[in-house]
Amino acid sequence: MSKLSLYPMTLDGTDIQKKRQEIKEYFNNTFDLYEKVFELLKDDSVFYEKSEITRHPMIFYFGHTATFFVNKLINMKVISQRIDASFESIFAVGVDEMSWDDVDSKNYNWPEVSEVREYRKKVKDLVNDLIMNLELTLPITQDSAMWIIIMGIEHERIHIETSLVLHRQMPIELIKEVKDFVLCNHSDEAPVNSLIDIHSKEIKLGKTKEHNLYGWDNEYGEYKESLNDFQVSKFLVSNGEYMNFVKDGGYENKEFWDDEGKRFLDLSGLKYPVFWVLKNDKYMYRALSKIIPMPQDWPVEVNALEAEAFCRYKSKQDNKEYLLPSEAEDRAIYEQTNLKDIPNLHESGANINFNHYASSSPVNEFAFSISTSDMLYDVIGNVWQWSRTPIFGFKGFEVHEAYDDFSTPTFDDKHALILGSSWASSGNLIMKHSRYAFRKHFYQFAGFRYVVSKNTKNDEIDIYESDELISQYCEFQYGDDNFGVRNFALNMAEIASKFSINTNKALDLGCATGRATFELAKTFKKVDGVDFSARFIGVGVKLQESGFVAFHTNIEGDLTQNKKINLEELGYEKLVNKVSFYQGDACNLKPNFNSYDLIMATNLIDRLYNPMLFLQTIDERLNDDGILILTSPYTWQENSTKKEFWLGGYKDENGEEVRTIDNLKNILNNKFKLLHVEDVEFVIRETQRKYQHSIAEVSIWKKR
Amino acid sequence: MSKLSLYPMTLDGTDIQKKRQEIKEYFNNTFDLYEKVFELLKDDSVFYEKSEITRHPMIFYFGHTATFFVNKLINMKVISQRIDASFESIFAVGVDEMSWDDVDSKNYNWPEVSEVREYRKKVKDLVNDLIMNLELTLPITQDSAMWIIIMGIEHERIHIETSLVLHRQMPIELIKEVKDFVLCNHSDEAPVNSLIDIHSKEIKLGKTKEHNLYGWDNEYGEYKESLNDFQVSKFLVSNGEYMNFVKDGGYENKEFWDDEGKRFLDLSGLKYPVFWVLKNDKYMYRALSKIIPMPQDWPVEVNALEAEAFCRYKSKQDNKEYLLPSEAEDRAIYEQTNLKDIPNLHESGANINFNHYASSSPVNEFAFSISTSDMLYDVIGNVWQWSRTPIFGFKGFEVHEAYDDFSTPTFDDKHALILGSSWASSGNLIMKHSRYAFRKHFYQFAGFRYVVSKNTKNDEIDIYESDELISQYCEFQYGDDNFGVRNFALNMAEIASKFSINTNKALDLGCATGRATFELAKTFKKVDGVDFSARFIGVGVKLQESGFVAFHTNIEGDLTQNKKINLEELGYEKLVNKVSFYQGDACNLKPNFNSYDLIMATNLIDRLYNPMLFLQTIDERLNDDGILILTSPYTWQENSTKKEFWLGGYKDENGEEVRTIDNLKNILNNKFKLLHVEDVEFVIRETQRKYQHSIAEVSIWKKR
Repeated sequence: MSKLSLYPMTLDGTDIQKKRQEIKEYFNNTFDLYEKVFELLKDDSVFYEKSEITRHPMIFYFGHTATFFVNKLINMKVISQRIDASFESIFAVGVDEMSWDDVDSKNYNWPEVSEVREYRKKVKDLVNDLIMNLELTLPITQDSAMWIIIMGIEHERIHIETSLVLHRQMPIELIKEVKDFVLCNHSDEAPVNSLIDIHSKEIKLGKTKEHNLYGWDNEYGEYKESLNDFQVSKFLVSNGEYMNFVKDGGYENKEFWDDEGKRFLDLSGLKYPVFWVLKNDKYMYRALSKIIPMPQDWPVEVNALEAEAFCRYKSKQDNKEYLLPSEAEDRAIYEQTNLKDIPNLHESGANINFNHYASSSPVNEFAFSISTSDMLYDVIGNVWQWSRTPIFGFKGFEVHEAYDDFSTPTFDDKHALILGSSWASSGNLIMKHSRYAFRKHFYQFAGFRYVVSKNTKNDEIDIYESDELISQYCEFQYGDDNFGVRNFALNMAEIASKFSINTNKALDLGCATGRATFELAKTFKKVDGVDFSARFIGVGVKLQESGFVAFHTNIEGDLTQNKKINLEELGYEKLVNKVSFYQGDACNLKPNFNSYDLIMATNLIDRLYNPMLFLQTIDERLNDDGILILTSPYTWQENSTKKEFWLGGYKDENGEEVRTIDNLKNILNNKFKLLHVEDVEFVIRETQRKYQHSIAEVSIWKKR
Repeated sequence: MSKLSLYPMTLDGTDIQKKRQEIKEYFNNTFDLYEKVFELLKDDSVFYEKSEITRHPMIFYFGHTATFFVNKLINMKVISQRIDASFESIFAVGVDEMSWDDVDSKNYNWPEVSEVREYRKKVKDLVNDLIMNLELTLPITQDSAMWIIIMGIEHERIHIETSLVLHRQMPIELIKEVKDFVLCNHSDEAPVNSLIDIHSKEIKLGKTKEHNLYGWDNEYGEYKESLNDFQVSKFLVSNGEYMNFVKDGGYENKEFWDDEGKRFLDLSGLKYPVFWVLKNDKYMYRALSKIIPMPQDWPVEVNALEAEAFCRYKSKQDNKEYLLPSEAEDRAIYEQTNLKDIPNLHESGANINFNHYASSSPVNEFAFSISTSDMLYDVIGNVWQWSRTPIFGFKGFEVHEAYDDFSTPTFDDKHALILGSSWASSGNLIMKHSRYAFRKHFYQFAGFRYVVSKNTKNDEIDIYESDELISQYCEFQYGDDNFGVRNFALNMAEIASKFSINTNKALDLGCATGRATFELAKTFKKVDGVDFSARFIGVGVKLQESGFVAFHTNIEGDLTQNKKINLEELGYEKLVNKVSFYQGDACNLKPNFNSYDLIMATNLIDRLYNPMLFLQTIDERLNDDGILILTSPYTWQENSTKKEFWLGGYKDENGEEVRTIDNLKNILNNKFKLLHVEDVEFVIRETQRKYQHSIAEVSIWKKR
């Protein structure tokens, strides 16, 4: 029997053709395995069901992983031809329960499953072709076109696991059994848990750019922590062990829950774990595609809030403080085993990579010897283990250009790391250095083990934006004026209000950190702020949700000044409900962004990969009498826009100079009347003594 | 017998250790061969002789190739420890007959030869160690640290050949024979030359960054030319063929010489080729280390001016136009042979790489069959062949950061390409894509062949600076004011004049394109402008020598505006002789830069690799009452200055913020009194609508 899930290939090697072959096999295995996951849905109608009200229906996920390849390849200019612009827009964003994802289904006209299957085939062919023909040198590095392919593969590996979680949350009658996904067929009484000593250690986390396995941005860099001795539970907490907490009324007793936990209890109304099923006063267990008698010795699956509550309960019982492990403690445990990383990881010794079961297994089945001659179980595999560490960027953290919002929106102190991987984890998910984090109320194939530990990370929460570019834009939009040049967002919102005819709904396209979006809400009833990058949108959303944003401004060298802005001072308290932020691609905007009285695109057109795509159809999104405002210093550059897509700044076939403003007139003339052109200066601070000082040309167009 | 000269290794491969070994062998072969070249000098006293009055003595060249490794490795921050700062300063620049090189020997205290030998050993050890231990991935690319090593090796390969030329120009009694350098021992009557047809072709020159052989900046990029059929001489022009020209009074008849040629004749007083020796009314021939009877069938060795004069003479004789070949025509010939590039080049078939002789050989010895079934001789090898093509940058030309002035100073329409390589050429010099160019009055192991051709390159001379950064600085220093901010160079020269006490001699350190250097000459009797990059100095020198400088200013995208400035308009006609430009490293300045009344370093300190080295001894170069002026926006960045060398913009060990100005006070306090501090704005134009707008802090210090 061929393996259900292959290991990922390494990035290095000496034989280019062989490497292409390895990538090809890994890609096709991933793509096929993903489709197999959707065989669990009883029939095609189930694709239009949601497993959670806050999520898109399953059809979205089915299309999403395929469009991801095309969108990233387009964005990184590896390819320039889309397969289906419509699919690549509606399936583009909306994966996470993020404030800026629009999951309201009435806004979408989902295609037929057969159409999406057809589309996936085309993507598969495209990627297979690229794998064999892209320029390739070894090792594959982050700036290689092949890196984007591997990013797409590993992205799909994540969705293999998270889609399985969503399927498991579906009503059981919508799910069918699939031959290849075999549940573990044995269980017993829960073993008695105990504590094992782990000796102190200097822990170094993070990997270098030269590492021979693919990594997400958050894995690179350096972090050090000195640990004291601590103790860790021999087993993951089993359903049996957790049962005491439930039976003792743990879900009713608020003293075990923190504020976030209490809110979760109120909203969910849960009295016991979500995958337990109370039937005739007996707890049954919801596996992937089946409800089975409670496997007492399998790990309990809970979210981080429940895991923390259990620890508080047990601390009270034993009069001893139990905690979830930290990331560094997990590494200390890992390093006491003789575990090896891919490709030398022996999957036979752990419940990972679909190698044993398509379910959890007894917490005393997979043993790992550790150097103290004890046995510790499920160091990796079975279910993920919630940690007490919120994910953060290591020293030297850098986003990858192709996926700049993979991690940064989670660096908010609210996303807890999960450790060790599950039976459904594969690819990057089972690598030593990988790091995944979720909001604490999320469900995964995740449970926990506990530690008794005096290790406290110096985790003073850094509320200040650590992202250099975002901070620069915060200063630009919310900071001080320089050289007597007035704040550009305020200026533009004022100009826009002056020229607008109707003031029902406005779109701030390329809204960045959202200042103009808020300002426009002084005039418009409703304003949508759309940006390509969730990193940028995060600022507007944070201002909306938390009432403040904190960032730093560069002074000189590494020295910075902390700044904090808040809704009251800005005078935006009453505007909060009038603005909405969304992630979106101006060159391939979702159809539901329409019916605007104003569309304002500030300093956007010379940063688009194909600005013509934006301009050609933008009129369709405007109401009668709608106003379009473009501003730009026309700094065309090849790393944003291939030369063939520049709107100006070149000589045409006759050797005539083409200026952008003239070309805009040609392009827009049929559909718009040019009302007004003016220059507006803006200044972006780099340091206390260095600034970008530009002169945008503002052109104001009225829909004909 | 082991080979005298090895082939260079390729940049690609699969076995890192093997590649290190190959680089090591190639390096040591190069380093040893270079030292062997100096064995030709009769004794150590000859090291202090000059072979040409405009050149440094030979000791300079002996030290130069070793210091090159250290200077480039320091500059690129591969190493941070110098071996001998003094050697690495005096042996650093002065290779070429460039206006900005100070070759006045009284300014130098040359070390003993034994000391330089000792120094070379240390460099050899260092480089051998780095070759084995530097981080290395394959293929080696331009951003690899190993590239700097290979650059050093290929730089020494060039000097192997050019030093041999210099030795040959030395009086014969100062040169001894060296066993390994064997002259060709046969010659005969000159063969009768004839013309061979070469058919039209579409020629593409230039190579891509992925090419598997090391290349200098000028080799990369793309250039296309459509050729018509042309004819080329079967043989290089032999001494015998050239003799007619000499005997017909060719050197006396001015009609065969252009203006540059006439000036050359006047200055040199030559009546026949420089390597011919008239003894008792008979022409003898100066070989490397011997004077021999005239080898009539060896190629004549002349400079480009003489080669052109011969062509005019022969054109008149035959009533047919003879020209030197163009670069594209040379490639057309090359492509009709079955020549292969390194590592598959068969050196047995050509007089190259020291493989046959340490001299020229008969022009009818090395035959190459070409596709027209004719034989053509010395397509490569024997002696270089002057072309009619001035070197220029291909489309996509970019300087390499580590050697940004390798080519650009030669893109002046005055440096003619030499084609095909000589018996003393090796390494990059014998690669298909390499491109070397010299001033037309220079001597190399170079002769010529002629063509009859109607091919005219569209060689409208582009006088406008093609170097983006240089143009940007020309605009900054000589262009328009923006945002009402006054020209920074004028401002600073004025401030400097106001604070100066004595006004004899000033140093403009980091002078860039030299505006402030000229301006200071309004106040000072003598002003030296020093910059790290010869690219920048070239502008000041051109203004001095040609009376004008032409550059372009970016408008939008690729569109630019041409600008031309001249001495008269600037009012600098009377100042020309008061200013001198030199290339120099502010962190390791030559001792002869001293006795100044003013040293002004504008926007320099935050671009130095180790600014402390500059500040610690700068007082020694100032006279009593001397003034030091520093200006900077303190934009410390790691790609200019490693963090450990920043003078400010960091937190110290106590967590206290260190500002640059405070640290400057600490560093300079003992030797200087701080007179004045003020802010001065400056604006650098990037495009018509985008500018860098900075605020320099100016601090003015008086020597205690």
